[in-house]
Amino acid sequence: MKKHNFSAGPSILPEFTIKNTAEAVTNFAGTGLSVMEVSHRSKEFVAVMDEAISTVKELLHVPAGYHVLFLGGGASTQFCMAPYNLLKTKAGYLNTGAWAAKAQKEAKLFGEVIEIASSKDKNYNYIPKKFDVPSDLDYLHLTTNNTIYGTETKTDLDLGVRLVADMSSDIFSRPVDISKYNLIYAGAQKNLAPAGVTLVIVKEEALGKMDRAIPSMLDYRTHIAAASMYNTPPVLPVYAALQTLNWLKNNGGISTINKKNIEKAAVLYDEIDSNKFFKATVEDPEDRSIMNICFVMQDEYADLEGEFMQLATSKGCVGIKGHRSVGGFRASTYNAMPKESIEVLVAAMQEFAAKH
Amino acid sequence: MKKHNFSAGPSILPEFTIKNTAEAVTNFAGTGLSVMEVSHRSKEFVAVMDEAISTVKELLHVPAGYHVLFLGGGASTQFCMAPYNLLKTKAGYLNTGAWAAKAQKEAKLFGEVIEIASSKDKNYNYIPKKFDVPSDLDYLHLTTNNTIYGTETKTDLDLGVRLVADMSSDIFSRPVDISKYNLIYAGAQKNLAPAGVTLVIVKEEALGKMDRAIPSMLDYRTHIAAASMYNTPPVLPVYAALQTLNWLKNNGGISTINKKNIEKAAVLYDEIDSNKFFKATVEDPEDRSIMNICFVMQDEYADLEGEFMQLATSKGCVGIKGHRSVGGFRASTYNAMPKESIEVLVAAMQEFAAKH
Repeated sequence: MKKHNFSAGPSILPEFTIKNTAEAVTNFAGTGLSVMEVSHRSKEFVAVMDEAISTVKELLHVPAGYHVLFLGGGASTQFCMAPYNLLKTKAGYLNTGAWAAKAQKEAKLFGEVIEIASSKDKNYNYIPKKFDVPSDLDYLHLTTNNTIYGTETKTDLDLGVRLVADMSSDIFSRPVDISKYNLIYAGAQKNLAPAGVTLVIVKEEALGKMDRAIPSMLDYRTHIAAASMYNTPPVLPVYAALQTLNWLKNNGGISTINKKNIEKAAVLYDEIDSNKFFKATVEDPEDRSIMNICFVMQDEYADLEGEFMQLATSKGCVGIKGHRSVGGFRASTYNAMPKESIEVLVAAMQEFAAKH
Repeated sequence: MKKHNFSAGPSILPEFTIKNTAEAVTNFAGTGLSVMEVSHRSKEFVAVMDEAISTVKELLHVPAGYHVLFLGGGASTQFCMAPYNLLKTKAGYLNTGAWAAKAQKEAKLFGEVIEIASSKDKNYNYIPKKFDVPSDLDYLHLTTNNTIYGTETKTDLDLGVRLVADMSSDIFSRPVDISKYNLIYAGAQKNLAPAGVTLVIVKEEALGKMDRAIPSMLDYRTHIAAASMYNTPPVLPVYAALQTLNWLKNNGGISTINKKNIEKAAVLYDEIDSNKFFKATVEDPEDRSIMNICFVMQDEYADLEGEFMQLATSKGCVGIKGHRSVGGFRASTYNAMPKESIEVLVAAMQEFAAKH
């Protein structure tokens, strides 16, 4: 039976990426060697890294003065790298979820941290909007998409302060005005590649202003100087990332995928809103993520949760269990998710409603 | 033509690892999903992580009181994590090469660092042996195998001081007395897996003694508490690592592979020592690495280097160019390298000698 992979991350990747990576594991770029065992200094892999960097620049329209890096260590490492490199005196953090709070906690080791606003009062089911931002912040940190709660900041905030953003779960899903950010980072395991590589986009001008000594591996300048080859990069994940980037490019780029993502999400939100057995955990449509769609049973049908899970699973839906802190269901509808898979889930919801 | 992969790293992996990983990229553990897109919290992957950790413990006879971790970020990240977690006052570093020197440089950010001995005077072509070790060191750091120069410390030093070792390029190649070490770390891309994951073996008792605040991702205790699942681990590299660990286990474990490695290295060193066109860069047999075998043309035949490279390449040998700081040739003969590949290189050397 065909599986419909709604996992929150690691998550669905394009068939194009899976097929090409499977081939490269056996024979990479005609070398007769596996992509797992070729030197990262080989001309074949250097070409992969160069093309991956240039394709990110092309797809996201990265302006001059910014560097694109592929680093190991995960977005969680960026929680400390960001303040290590950019927090001189005072930074603001927008607390929109567990990951945002973790980023904020790490920053406190490096300077003054101001929680600008928080939606913790309602289990993070909305994006705070009314808040003041001091003008003397080194940066304002935000998590643009909150995977656990299904909320998303879909625009690039214009607050008179430089932005730093964790875009792990919505990078490449919408156009971004990079010029507003000093730093964007994203763990690859949602819209890009298997886990093990982190995409970083950093503004040259923002670096080199700290008094503290920064360990080499945590200093963005180290990786810029070495074009992401200071140490051995995660070769296979970078190869897979390039496949996804090319798939995206071949399919119309970011504005096209953004339209599709909005359409896909609407199909599911519409069903949730109209089906009397379910309700969305995020009420305000403006705050609803187009990447992670969270919903629960209506209170009076709470005891039917297990039955719906069973039905959806029987239709091939995988990974739709909501995070334990939210409960219910979460359908992650990343770039690679075809509309057909969402229709399978919607059909299951309709079948369920018809039965009861 | 069959390729003989002598690359220094990323480097040859067992066919067993490549075959199983290629299959898992298409269909992982019967899930119908790629290993690149399954949740790290899925029961199938949790089982992989658990088995990888227990198999490391079994193969290396890891004593009680030690933790085995699989982390992202590469061994270079360990250059700062080691002192962040373990350097309270003063540490000793043995300078046996460029990587050892990099580790030493990072440690200076965290405390007093004493260079116990160095072989830099002879371009690191030997392992220093006569040196005094202060008894009040927090630890003595060594790089057990020096990939670039082809030197190796093949025994576990007994110097009355706790050891910290970078074993990136000889882990699993020989039995190790773990009890002498507070910390062992190894980038996976030599004897274990594709690049993107780092193996860490750390003694519980050595941790928690620092006054400094340690960023969460750089604190070994974070990863111990979460059994290497604090953040999303590099799923595919861990899966591949398990395949290699099982291959090693199925083939007699570490003592058997160690015997094979010694035999394999002897075949090549014997040819180098007896063939009048070549010479080993490391003279003392005690210091010669069984993982990376470095050799150059004898001075009077220096102009024939390109010709031999061409001949070896024509026989399918890949990755035998020496590091630019040593020159000549380097044959990396990791665990997965079959004796037959070494015999192909030796036959090329003999053919070359016969021709001239």
